[in-house]
Amino acid sequence: MKKFINSVDAMLAESLDGFAAAHADIVALGPERKFVRRRSVNANKVALVSGGGSGHEPLHAGFVGTGMLDAACPGQIFTSPTPDQIVEAAAAVGGRAGVLFIAKNYAGDCMNFEMAAELFAGAAATVVTNDDVAVEKSTHSTGRRGVAGTLVVEKIVGAAAENGMDLKSCAQLGSEVNARTRSIGVALTSCTVPAAGTPTFALGADEMEMGVGIHGEPGRKRVALASADAIAEQMLGAILADGDGLSGEVLLLVNGFGGTPAIELYLMYNAARRILEQRGLGIARSLVGSYVTSLEMAGCSITLTQLDDRLTALWDDPVHTAALRW
Amino acid sequence: MKKFINSVDAMLAESLDGFAAAHADIVALGPERKFVRRRSVNANKVALVSGGGSGHEPLHAGFVGTGMLDAACPGQIFTSPTPDQIVEAAAAVGGRAGVLFIAKNYAGDCMNFEMAAELFAGAAATVVTNDDVAVEKSTHSTGRRGVAGTLVVEKIVGAAAENGMDLKSCAQLGSEVNARTRSIGVALTSCTVPAAGTPTFALGADEMEMGVGIHGEPGRKRVALASADAIAEQMLGAILADGDGLSGEVLLLVNGFGGTPAIELYLMYNAARRILEQRGLGIARSLVGSYVTSLEMAGCSITLTQLDDRLTALWDDPVHTAALRW
Repeated sequence: MKKFINSVDAMLAESLDGFAAAHADIVALGPERKFVRRRSVNANKVALVSGGGSGHEPLHAGFVGTGMLDAACPGQIFTSPTPDQIVEAAAAVGGRAGVLFIAKNYAGDCMNFEMAAELFAGAAATVVTNDDVAVEKSTHSTGRRGVAGTLVVEKIVGAAAENGMDLKSCAQLGSEVNARTRSIGVALTSCTVPAAGTPTFALGADEMEMGVGIHGEPGRKRVALASADAIAEQMLGAILADGDGLSGEVLLLVNGFGGTPAIELYLMYNAARRILEQRGLGIARSLVGSYVTSLEMAGCSITLTQLDDRLTALWDDPVHTAALRW
Repeated sequence: MKKFINSVDAMLAESLDGFAAAHADIVALGPERKFVRRRSVNANKVALVSGGGSGHEPLHAGFVGTGMLDAACPGQIFTSPTPDQIVEAAAAVGGRAGVLFIAKNYAGDCMNFEMAAELFAGAAATVVTNDDVAVEKSTHSTGRRGVAGTLVVEKIVGAAAENGMDLKSCAQLGSEVNARTRSIGVALTSCTVPAAGTPTFALGADEMEMGVGIHGEPGRKRVALASADAIAEQMLGAILADGDGLSGEVLLLVNGFGGTPAIELYLMYNAARRILEQRGLGIARSLVGSYVTSLEMAGCSITLTQLDDRLTALWDDPVHTAALRW
């Protein structure tokens, strides 16, 4: 296992300490590192609290800041945060306008966020993201997995909350954005979970895992390595064949899994862009980078969100976090 | 070779097309993709033109925009841009205030930027960065290599140029920032140059290359894999032992080489931060991320720049590029 690490047990704590120190102008760590919160809490707005297993950085702590999340609860690597983490985060950032929990659809996350919502003394609502079209159920979830589309939900609802939207409307908006968002991923290599010390799965030199989950969970099929264009065709084919499909103007997010550099992500973005334009879809907004990672996995996901004028305006609203700024 | 790629020959062009499309609000591609320039050229200021071999993304094209570069010339992967690329970029963005070329100290880059400066009709000056303390000469350079510290030079001089500084002063400032900046890198894995198809160098499962260059050039020594703290000690030891050393307030940049995820980079930042504080240095500014990469190499570099009030203010000035924004 080749990682920058001192010990498996201390990895998360040390990385969080580094994150909080590097971005002390934006965030602060909660007691015992139970959560990362905005440095300046705004108690007059709906507070967005997300979280999940670590190993997906910058998701979620990198999205804490003005215009996006109010707090994020990091679990151990690929492990859900505990209900008490979530309750303490909500108490630290929530005010009279209430707290919106945003969880990705994994069994542990759903259970712990649900328990937290019950334990939390204030008003709360929950949005669960499940944008991954690859599989209908997986080793980690009942129903579809929540993956990189979670970023889109957090950004758009974050902007709405910043603008004063009430709790019920924020929850509805989050569900709407999630329903308009579809993702699929592909892995070229496996990640190695530090506590395991060996790769999560084995891939041949000429193989890739189409539909991989962000924890290295199996996808749709193990297939032969293909050209970037052919990979993008497979991925977008799966997304566009899903449900009623997408039309009109979309947000295109090409997300790296941690081990794939920018030169390849922009090439994949270019391949996806050409395919979408051939199919008559307009790319109204774009984002390219490693935002929802799987440790050092090489690979990427493609996410499309069907936009309308309101969602585009919320996407464009200012955001000031460690990982997203405009 | 597991990469998102259609063909070796088209890789750079397709990635540049994707980059330009994804960031069409900030940049535009020059004819035949010879350079990336700001979408809106400001002819009243000193124009900063950088460039170098590709494979280091987001360096340099990701730093084109308000407050930083005016244009960047991408060579083929790990290959210098040609003089005509550089001259055309200078002609496209340069005005009466002249053009400052910023090159990293590699034989090909120096020769081609020098030739371009001679061919260019307007006023020009050149800054060459050589911040890498690892080796005094290498397979690619006479003298020290220019590495991630180039980002610091481009940011600080970019801010000064935006504020109206004249050409001669910009060149002096660039040299001063370079002289105050020291870097060293370490590789955990090799990168694979697409045209070669096989890893540039071989590393055992328990080995790392201390002092590696950003093209996978040999560093100081092949050493045993160590803890993050021990690696940071070795790296900062080399930086702080160099020349007259550094004191007072520094900028700390922990830069990923492309295959190392954020969770590890923040952990390395944390290790470096603790060591610097123990040694009595103040970390006035921080930057953590994959900014000067070596394709998909796993590894990182640490860069320190000794700041003063003037340099800190220039670092803090607004920047709006694809890769750096504040």
